[in-house]
Amino acid sequence: MISRISRNLQRRNFATRGAAPESSPAQGHYPGTYIAGTYNRLRSEIAGRIVENESLVNVPSWLPLSFATDDGVAFHPDTTEVLDHRIELDLRRGVLTRRSRLREPSGRILAITQRRFVSVRDPHLAAVECTLAAEGWSGRLLVTSALDGRVTNDGVARYRSLPSDHLRPVEECFADEQTMCLEVETSDSHIRIAESARTRVFADGELVEVPRRPQAEPRYVAHHLDLDLVDGRPVTIEKVVAVFTSRDDGIYEPHRESERCATGAADFDELLDRHVLTWAHAWNRSRIDLDDPVDDTARVLDLHVFHLLQTTSKNTAELDVGVPARGLHGEAYRGHVFWDELFIFPFLSWRVPELTRALLRYRARRLDQARGLAREAGYRGAMYPWQSASNGREETQTLHLNPESGRWLPDASHLQRHIDAAIAYEVWSYWQVTADLEFMRFWGAEMMLEIARFWVSATTYDRLRDRYDIVGVVGPDEYHEGYPGADEPGLRNNAYTNLMAVWCVCRAFDVLALLPEQRRRELLEKLALTQEELDRWGDVSRKMTVCFHDDVISQFEGYGDLEELDWESYRSRYGNIGRLDRILEAEGDTPNRYKLSKQADTLMLFYLFSAEEVQQLIERLGYPYDADLIPRTISYYEARTSHGSTLSYVVHAWLHARGDRRQAWDLFRQALLADVADVQGGTTAEGIHLGAMAGTVDLVQRCFTGIETRHDRLVINPVLPDELDRLHFQVTYRRNTIDLTFTADRLVVQVLSDGDEARPIPMEIAGTAHRLQPGERLEVDLARPRR
Amino acid sequence: MISRISRNLQRRNFATRGAAPESSPAQGHYPGTYIAGTYNRLRSEIAGRIVENESLVNVPSWLPLSFATDDGVAFHPDTTEVLDHRIELDLRRGVLTRRSRLREPSGRILAITQRRFVSVRDPHLAAVECTLAAEGWSGRLLVTSALDGRVTNDGVARYRSLPSDHLRPVEECFADEQTMCLEVETSDSHIRIAESARTRVFADGELVEVPRRPQAEPRYVAHHLDLDLVDGRPVTIEKVVAVFTSRDDGIYEPHRESERCATGAADFDELLDRHVLTWAHAWNRSRIDLDDPVDDTARVLDLHVFHLLQTTSKNTAELDVGVPARGLHGEAYRGHVFWDELFIFPFLSWRVPELTRALLRYRARRLDQARGLAREAGYRGAMYPWQSASNGREETQTLHLNPESGRWLPDASHLQRHIDAAIAYEVWSYWQVTADLEFMRFWGAEMMLEIARFWVSATTYDRLRDRYDIVGVVGPDEYHEGYPGADEPGLRNNAYTNLMAVWCVCRAFDVLALLPEQRRRELLEKLALTQEELDRWGDVSRKMTVCFHDDVISQFEGYGDLEELDWESYRSRYGNIGRLDRILEAEGDTPNRYKLSKQADTLMLFYLFSAEEVQQLIERLGYPYDADLIPRTISYYEARTSHGSTLSYVVHAWLHARGDRRQAWDLFRQALLADVADVQGGTTAEGIHLGAMAGTVDLVQRCFTGIETRHDRLVINPVLPDELDRLHFQVTYRRNTIDLTFTADRLVVQVLSDGDEARPIPMEIAGTAHRLQPGERLEVDLARPRR
Repeated sequence: MISRISRNLQRRNFATRGAAPESSPAQGHYPGTYIAGTYNRLRSEIAGRIVENESLVNVPSWLPLSFATDDGVAFHPDTTEVLDHRIELDLRRGVLTRRSRLREPSGRILAITQRRFVSVRDPHLAAVECTLAAEGWSGRLLVTSALDGRVTNDGVARYRSLPSDHLRPVEECFADEQTMCLEVETSDSHIRIAESARTRVFADGELVEVPRRPQAEPRYVAHHLDLDLVDGRPVTIEKVVAVFTSRDDGIYEPHRESERCATGAADFDELLDRHVLTWAHAWNRSRIDLDDPVDDTARVLDLHVFHLLQTTSKNTAELDVGVPARGLHGEAYRGHVFWDELFIFPFLSWRVPELTRALLRYRARRLDQARGLAREAGYRGAMYPWQSASNGREETQTLHLNPESGRWLPDASHLQRHIDAAIAYEVWSYWQVTADLEFMRFWGAEMMLEIARFWVSATTYDRLRDRYDIVGVVGPDEYHEGYPGADEPGLRNNAYTNLMAVWCVCRAFDVLALLPEQRRRELLEKLALTQEELDRWGDVSRKMTVCFHDDVISQFEGYGDLEELDWESYRSRYGNIGRLDRILEAEGDTPNRYKLSKQADTLMLFYLFSAEEVQQLIERLGYPYDADLIPRTISYYEARTSHGSTLSYVVHAWLHARGDRRQAWDLFRQALLADVADVQGGTTAEGIHLGAMAGTVDLVQRCFTGIETRHDRLVINPVLPDELDRLHFQVTYRRNTIDLTFTADRLVVQVLSDGDEARPIPMEIAGTAHRLQPGERLEVDLARPRR
Repeated sequence: MISRISRNLQRRNFATRGAAPESSPAQGHYPGTYIAGTYNRLRSEIAGRIVENESLVNVPSWLPLSFATDDGVAFHPDTTEVLDHRIELDLRRGVLTRRSRLREPSGRILAITQRRFVSVRDPHLAAVECTLAAEGWSGRLLVTSALDGRVTNDGVARYRSLPSDHLRPVEECFADEQTMCLEVETSDSHIRIAESARTRVFADGELVEVPRRPQAEPRYVAHHLDLDLVDGRPVTIEKVVAVFTSRDDGIYEPHRESERCATGAADFDELLDRHVLTWAHAWNRSRIDLDDPVDDTARVLDLHVFHLLQTTSKNTAELDVGVPARGLHGEAYRGHVFWDELFIFPFLSWRVPELTRALLRYRARRLDQARGLAREAGYRGAMYPWQSASNGREETQTLHLNPESGRWLPDASHLQRHIDAAIAYEVWSYWQVTADLEFMRFWGAEMMLEIARFWVSATTYDRLRDRYDIVGVVGPDEYHEGYPGADEPGLRNNAYTNLMAVWCVCRAFDVLALLPEQRRRELLEKLALTQEELDRWGDVSRKMTVCFHDDVISQFEGYGDLEELDWESYRSRYGNIGRLDRILEAEGDTPNRYKLSKQADTLMLFYLFSAEEVQQLIERLGYPYDADLIPRTISYYEARTSHGSTLSYVVHAWLHARGDRRQAWDLFRQALLADVADVQGGTTAEGIHLGAMAGTVDLVQRCFTGIETRHDRLVINPVLPDELDRLHFQVTYRRNTIDLTFTADRLVVQVLSDGDEARPIPMEIAGTAHRLQPGERLEVDLARPRR
């Protein structure tokens, strides 16, 4: 595995030396230093999401710091000889270090050591410190420190023909001798972004004044410094940058705030100390201690947690943002918010539920827009968009490019109405973990009821069969957008969609039951929800159509009539068949004709629900259920899935966790490597896949441990993979912190004394009921013979 | 009382006819229709606070709707004969109705009935409907519907010499035949405000097309409509306006959102129905049912609750706003946020705690700025500003104008450091009512610790007395800003400040104890709070100075040495001596010389704390305490208070509630009338006094009922005034809704079944301990002989 990462990193011209993990026996291991394969930019994290033409817009670059000899030769890896170039990302501290030794044509060698971070403690600040050492020579070095607002969005090759230049100049100026300021505005949405940078020079730890020339052009501002380097006496440049946007809270306007913040900022070391301490605390809450003697699982999981914590934090909780599919790392999908939350919130809710709450409010604020989308489409209730951005309208493209064929093709992926079910599932899951009644009263209940209403309105009644159908949708498997030869896109009775719809309606009834009487009455009035309509909901929830063929659940009506694909032939011809859709389209064919899936579709049901819950849903609808239905259905679709989504391995790993632990581990490892080894061949550079990253963490956190909520009980039923000797982490459950240590044959549960109103927590551990008091510690012998 | 209101209203040229209160025996009375004495503008409520030069800025007026004959004679109350003019504010429905009959010089009479509201359900929408009837004539009427961005901030006479024109033009345009759009930008803070107005004409319930001419000028856009009026056939103009600002969440940019929202809006009646239903639900949560056979107490309380609900709602919870002292009603104090929260949050926390949570986050977001203020002043920890606005800096004026003398005087009111204690008290009180541990972990604890740290850093140690002093402050009584003849402003050892500081330190220890172990450790690390520093906190909390004289607590050190004022002389000479400071200054004297108070200062302690708590604080400091200390201190200062603040009556009413119920009721009535009768003579027009309004509601809600939290118990110990036969309302306590009905000799408590995890609530009712289960109902015989 290391060798695969190495190859990948080598290709991208990064060195690969890993640092020794820092650990202390008392506290378990800390996330070690990790090499930056997937992480080479610190950009829009500061400002949150700047949206322009509904795209993520890069804020002006605060990094530019360049070096040249006095005769104008730049020290730059692209143009000078690279003697050494190493990048390290320290996950524990959130610091990126670059060490380079460059030799310019006349032989002068410059050693550059750069440390940089975007502060998690002071969310408007970022800092870079650059130590320069002349090796074997003395003389003048020209240093340019700049803020560059001429940046474009060019991180994704296939978007480059679209408008990518989104910033207009507002002002360039100098606040004082050391500090330059740049203000720009997004061209269409008129969001102002102000950056101020204080650049200082230190030698032997002392601040030194050096001659500097200011430069200001539209969207660009710089200080040119003249440094006299002496062989063996390194000089340090410190650049501290404050970034504000006109959408930030607690400000007057961004320009003056950024000036004030940059000129008054502490020095690099103090800012770094604060940043590192905040990261340490974030790791306390979020880390997973894992003994895996064989693999590097722990390190990759740490990388995934690192990205999760970068994308969602107390800082983003103050912003009106959701979770973009590619995190804040790349520009693919333009920062849009899909259903990845479904894979991300479980991690957050069990660790820092306040973050899930804040992110669910991104959806809650757009409830009215979702109602509008439903109305426009002829439905009732709330229909959330498949791709969501600033104002909650549907952002999904209607055409997409197949790079294999060069053709632009109609895109029906907005018919993935199941996004609505994902949001209801997220609200309900948050409620289960937190029992946060205020959230439910204020926001959650209304969302869930309007989603249930949407589903009921989306059904059509088939009098002949006495069944309700949902037609014209696309399931999670985007390879099937319609029937072969059909004029209109959309499928009939996608099993995942229909069963999720039934589940949503059932939970809507639960929500009504749990609300305080008065709030329930008010909500029914507000939504004009009558008993008659509720009766119809009940009817739909008992008579939804689910289709079956070959004794398995049909992915959608008519799936059984599709042709089998000659998988071997395609595998041998194409190797990687992850994107079979593109391959088939380039051949003039279409995946709509075949029994194949891009990713888990029907199987998502077994990912989201326990076997008991699936059984209840199926039997509620009056369909026969037998204990083998789930395994049969898994085998059937697994043989027909190309795993064209990074989420697919996560789901399939989950499905096997209790049946085939070898298989589960292999799939888990596949999912784990998705970004770090860039298994999709190039997509990681366009942005990490945050859903899959979170999914792997959640596999360890909830799946291997069997953690779930069931009727107000906390259930723990571990099936630790053989590859893990020991697993330790803490979860937050209904205002209690619970410390969990799993080994092959033992589970230690400790409810920490949280000072909250003390009361016992009902639990079910490995099948036995317990009630743990705050402060209580319980050891359970799992007594399960290892394989 | 009605006659006083009437007089006041007559003076202001409003009619005074009241409508019969609507009531239903089953549900108790609803807030009745109330005459708009204090409420004649619906303006910036929509957009929240727009801050410019740290002032509240009026958004463009959306109301202009004017009428003229075809020969250009305007129908306007200022220029035409007013046959009838009546304004009614319907508190229950949040609708303002104006009925006018105007006769122009040639004798044509036009009857105008206007209904308008700013929607609480659709927070971006406002609507006005105007029905026009020609009486005894037929002919053409020219109607102008406009959006006017040329508005200024001119609501407060003494501010008019300051810059008041804050809006710059951006765009004026027409989205479609019916809809005009105006976009402006605040000149300095660059906040964009977009309004779009759809104007339609209806006759006999049918939409009619009428000729219309568009007009657009910088900051002004209008539709001129030609109406052919027929005698006896009224015509209705409907104007629906959508307002967005660039600081709103969930939008792309304000202009297009406002166009989309206005053109797609429902009609007036549907919007009104939604608005009214939301108001009904707000009243469900917030109303106080009160049988007062004699007075109009219930109606005035309803008016106060109405203003509270207008200023703080689910809509403002989405904004980064605090509670401005004058609500959203007037421009006095420029929208700044003082300590009025201290009087307002108790109402909100016991009703809709989510609102307190949102408003406390206004403070939490500005914690770093408060740290900066402390640092700049040479202190540690967090020092919140006395007047706070957008970015958390100190906004208090350094000079103020005495209108009595015409002199500009130095203003030391920023030395009211007790604002810090108010904020800590608010966080702690919210915690007591809600047990919201997530809030405490995330935000509250850090605020309370940094406030405690500030107080300790603000002390100076007096080795001789072995006591800690706090010097250079001003207490709540703004009449004393320093010592007579002193060079520097500020007092030594203000008793309120010092005892609140001790209380803050004690509660900071409590907060540390209630935090989960890990969070406590992290917070101590983050704040670099060592055991040594905590030991010092403990020392300060046991050795703070409190001064005494004449066997009462001294308002500050040296108060006993001040001169007595000849109150009778000033009363006879000036009548209203509420603003004795201005009177004395105009006479060349200063209140600093005298034993007099503008408002409760030391006595605030007995408002915020029970006698037991005061005793604990005093005895903790090693001072003698006897049972008469509090009554003695009350009598002493009551005789020397001019009640120059509307809050003062609230506090004094509270102090007497258990001792002298007659006196308490009289003071309560004084507080109640502050705005409705404009007792300060003109200040109400500059903005209602939201703290005093909330204070009167809270007197009924918590003081007369004896509701308090004590060591995780809910205490109820009523002393109903004789003037109230029955009192009924619901409170929210730690996720339970509790229904309370008080009569003279009986209390009925019912814990509603809220579906939350059922568990008993520890209570103490009239001195007896109870544990009520959800769903349980308890009747308690109060067995207290009436006076």
